[in-house]
Amino acid sequence: MLKEAVYHRPKNQYAYAYDEKTLHIQLRTKKSDVDFVQLIHGDPYEWENSQWQAVKLPMEKSGSDDLFDYWFVAIQPPYRRLRYGFQLESASETLVYTEKGFYNEAPFDDVAYYFCFPFLNAIDVFKAPAWVKDTVWYQIFPERFGNGDSSIDPKGALKWGSAEPSITNFFGGDFQGIIQNIDYLVNLGISGIYLTPIFKAHSNHKYDTIDYMEIDPQFGDKETFKKLVDTCHEHGIKIMLDAVFNHSGYFFEPFQDVLKNGENSIYKNWFYINEFPLKTEPRPNYDAFAFVASMPKLNTENPDVKDYLLKVGKYWVEEFNIDGWRLDVANEIDHQFWRDFRHAIKTINPDVYILGEIWHDSMPWLQGDQFDAVMNYPFTNGALNYFAQNTVPAEQFRGIIENVLHMYPRNVNEVAFNLLGSHDTKRILNTAGFNKKKIKLLTAFQLSFLGSPCIYYGDEISMTGEQDPGCRKCMVWEKEEQDLDMLEHTKKLISLRKSVPVFGSLGKFSFIEANNETNHIIYTKENSAGLLIAVMNNSDQKQDLSLPFELKDQKVVDLWTEKEFAAHSNNLSVSLEAYGFAFLLVNKA
Amino acid sequence: MLKEAVYHRPKNQYAYAYDEKTLHIQLRTKKSDVDFVQLIHGDPYEWENSQWQAVKLPMEKSGSDDLFDYWFVAIQPPYRRLRYGFQLESASETLVYTEKGFYNEAPFDDVAYYFCFPFLNAIDVFKAPAWVKDTVWYQIFPERFGNGDSSIDPKGALKWGSAEPSITNFFGGDFQGIIQNIDYLVNLGISGIYLTPIFKAHSNHKYDTIDYMEIDPQFGDKETFKKLVDTCHEHGIKIMLDAVFNHSGYFFEPFQDVLKNGENSIYKNWFYINEFPLKTEPRPNYDAFAFVASMPKLNTENPDVKDYLLKVGKYWVEEFNIDGWRLDVANEIDHQFWRDFRHAIKTINPDVYILGEIWHDSMPWLQGDQFDAVMNYPFTNGALNYFAQNTVPAEQFRGIIENVLHMYPRNVNEVAFNLLGSHDTKRILNTAGFNKKKIKLLTAFQLSFLGSPCIYYGDEISMTGEQDPGCRKCMVWEKEEQDLDMLEHTKKLISLRKSVPVFGSLGKFSFIEANNETNHIIYTKENSAGLLIAVMNNSDQKQDLSLPFELKDQKVVDLWTEKEFAAHSNNLSVSLEAYGFAFLLVNKA
Repeated sequence: MLKEAVYHRPKNQYAYAYDEKTLHIQLRTKKSDVDFVQLIHGDPYEWENSQWQAVKLPMEKSGSDDLFDYWFVAIQPPYRRLRYGFQLESASETLVYTEKGFYNEAPFDDVAYYFCFPFLNAIDVFKAPAWVKDTVWYQIFPERFGNGDSSIDPKGALKWGSAEPSITNFFGGDFQGIIQNIDYLVNLGISGIYLTPIFKAHSNHKYDTIDYMEIDPQFGDKETFKKLVDTCHEHGIKIMLDAVFNHSGYFFEPFQDVLKNGENSIYKNWFYINEFPLKTEPRPNYDAFAFVASMPKLNTENPDVKDYLLKVGKYWVEEFNIDGWRLDVANEIDHQFWRDFRHAIKTINPDVYILGEIWHDSMPWLQGDQFDAVMNYPFTNGALNYFAQNTVPAEQFRGIIENVLHMYPRNVNEVAFNLLGSHDTKRILNTAGFNKKKIKLLTAFQLSFLGSPCIYYGDEISMTGEQDPGCRKCMVWEKEEQDLDMLEHTKKLISLRKSVPVFGSLGKFSFIEANNETNHIIYTKENSAGLLIAVMNNSDQKQDLSLPFELKDQKVVDLWTEKEFAAHSNNLSVSLEAYGFAFLLVNKA
Repeated sequence: MLKEAVYHRPKNQYAYAYDEKTLHIQLRTKKSDVDFVQLIHGDPYEWENSQWQAVKLPMEKSGSDDLFDYWFVAIQPPYRRLRYGFQLESASETLVYTEKGFYNEAPFDDVAYYFCFPFLNAIDVFKAPAWVKDTVWYQIFPERFGNGDSSIDPKGALKWGSAEPSITNFFGGDFQGIIQNIDYLVNLGISGIYLTPIFKAHSNHKYDTIDYMEIDPQFGDKETFKKLVDTCHEHGIKIMLDAVFNHSGYFFEPFQDVLKNGENSIYKNWFYINEFPLKTEPRPNYDAFAFVASMPKLNTENPDVKDYLLKVGKYWVEEFNIDGWRLDVANEIDHQFWRDFRHAIKTINPDVYILGEIWHDSMPWLQGDQFDAVMNYPFTNGALNYFAQNTVPAEQFRGIIENVLHMYPRNVNEVAFNLLGSHDTKRILNTAGFNKKKIKLLTAFQLSFLGSPCIYYGDEISMTGEQDPGCRKCMVWEKEEQDLDMLEHTKKLISLRKSVPVFGSLGKFSFIEANNETNHIIYTKENSAGLLIAVMNNSDQKQDLSLPFELKDQKVVDLWTEKEFAAHSNNLSVSLEAYGFAFLLVNKA
């Protein structure tokens, strides 16, 4: 056995409280190196009486990526305390792995060898709002979704859709434009709207805030915003705002004060100023988002700044009843700020979703004390590379997704924000070389995966666009210019997610096959009520794919055609067109 | 290269802020598998302009344990942001390791491949009080150190030292007994006292608190305690108390109220009661420390309990000016409690040391938001096994200590609480089979290691005792019964720690040799001022050990004999008696 590959460390995805009674324990071993793993375990204060030897718990192989196998077990220790180790078996060898290393036999002379989950304190358990699992998000870039009130258009606004989006042009999208299209969204079936920033700002994207307590007048006023929230809520749609707390805009009053008064400004410690007077060229001589002089970094370590931003965070929850905060550039703000932010928001309403924008491994923010979720870009990249760009083959894709599934605790994965594109990326149709079949397969995967999927406005009608600003075109409202076939496809997937629980976030996801020759994958989602078999032919050839399941005499429903059939043999196969897929549901008795 | 052995994950010991400007990056590879590692790195917002390729930073091999090599580099990113990967080279192969896996060449098409340290926020930096590094602790079990005021002896107290310690007997140790022996401690040279609990309690060990706001009357009153603190401070000695917040004692008023009033008690949610009425047999039907019915677990998740305990924490700091809190059974209390505790205490005085009792891997508590240090039992066990019990040979000891050094960030190791024994363990002399030479070598190692060493009262005069209660004998004050030779030895080590900075916590520790045949070790500590060479002959034979250093014509001071000599050749050796040691100091020009 390869000792160097074996990994475990408590209090991250390898050992965590899933709920107030249950611990999840995970182990990593070299791929295909170990046949059987058991958890040696017991109460930390009971180890002497040999009970430990008697009750080893078998672990399940929960997945594999390129290099590793992962093993999993759930356990409910009666006294909410656990000491544990692992017994690894292969045909030729048995090893015991503990916090102090490897042994040929489990050492029982001292409890100190063993890994420790000292106590399951309920207050430390990662807890996201329950509604998130069942939510399908729709991301709206408000300047470009609908212009419902031309009287508030910004100066020089162009006619809707009359030009390519640029960094500086405006088209007059506003809240009224969302309100008057609410039926479109209800018909699509989405259940949450994520709005990019709406506060008073300078640019068309509004990430350069001027006033965090005011609505940008081009979108409407507070009354219209209230109406928007209420309209959404009446239709069972949650609404999430974008909190840009890493930096302000150039025209944010405190920054203007620093520009004007320099060292004498009472706001000089609201930012990170390296020298006075302030300069913006060649690079700002103050900290900024990236090197963007118009986005000075806010000093969130300054208690005054923190108080102000927490007040902002609370205000929109308390006064407008919003359901979530998406946190822009969340990873560059201090952890202490986010802990206090969570406390402030959850004290008002524990059901508000706190979603961080982080593009990389985010375990340090997902321990229960900071965020409920992050934007799941590792998922995004894996899915795009396999389905849209074909830059990774099936087996590698399997490895990527297994890796995504094993990088966080399960309760974190269940509420992950699984997007495919956003205002910051190329449109998915462009990424897929304008192959709509690929997009259909891609979204079929996204919407049958666990977590909380998000659709970027217009993707459902095949809108195109390159990297921003290209991806920020005006929403197309003329039916004849909308891809209604793609719209139906998306709608159907969303409705399956609602009507078939195992299709949505409540099924346990497992890869069954991933084949580089055919480039197909088969995965299942399973819960106590049913088994969903998903078969995806990610190739440009029609293929017959046989199903490695024993389904003889069981009733199977093809969810897409709604045909029900009973399998008459165990040698089932499905015939799939190029980029075709099938979702087969086997109901359990 | 063995890919499965390569490990890195940010925001623990593998990537952390050492101070407000400096990041430390660490990588793990298979032992002796990689010859050269470089850090590929750059600003997250500058990666496109190819600067990254030009400025790879070589990493230093900082140590090895049984299975792995560790690589280290410190870096000060100009904008406090870093994206990075690792280029690994062996004679036959070059690999690049990123957050997304391995590549043959560094990918420069997207910054998203790279590991991320998003921003160095000063407020998140792990910061322990600066004084801790220079402190030598002395642990006192107050019932057994000195009886200075027989008028407050508990009923039935025995004559000092007249009997073996039992679980229930008393000898009348008190604060006055410490005050009147302060000269002994000053003479010994210690600079911090850690007192096991002093609050009103039932047992002789006082871990079963009755009243957290009162001094146990057998020790004195608040006035005497104030006098003790002042006396210590006058002599430059810090004083740390023991906070037993995981559980109260049976006679704690709120618990008595629950016993009396059952479900009607206003305190019923101060504990975790499984059913009423309360029972203690066969096991308590309420949560307790271990299964000890007289120590009911406090519900620190209950805001009332938290408020009360934080009030306690603040009271003794504010009113009595104590310098540290040692937190009993710290790992079984929720993380949120400890975050609030740290905030409450550090707001009063950031210079108070917060030390958790945790016996296992403690990274989740040492991220800067909870503890300054933990009791470093992995160090304890390694040192005792090698020096006292000879159950591990030199090479394995080296691996254990390297592992200890690489399991936490360096700023954590610098203030680790490095004890050899305590009121919870056998006396070190017993562990060493009463071989005093072994103890001398053991303490020479402890006191020349980094971190903050702690001496358990009486070890310095060779007191004996088995596992508690045996290790809690009355301090021996009769000179003729004290081991004055051991006392001198300890004193000399402490004084070297003070007079030679590189001997103490300010030198960088490196193993140079560890040899199983001779069972000797050589290690160095180094800083800009000097190089300390420590040679330890952990065998029962006199040995000549040659020194693998080029010291020709350099001035060398033997710190133990105080002899200075110039080396006339590079083939230096030292001759050491059984269990002998040498400390050679080479001053840098």
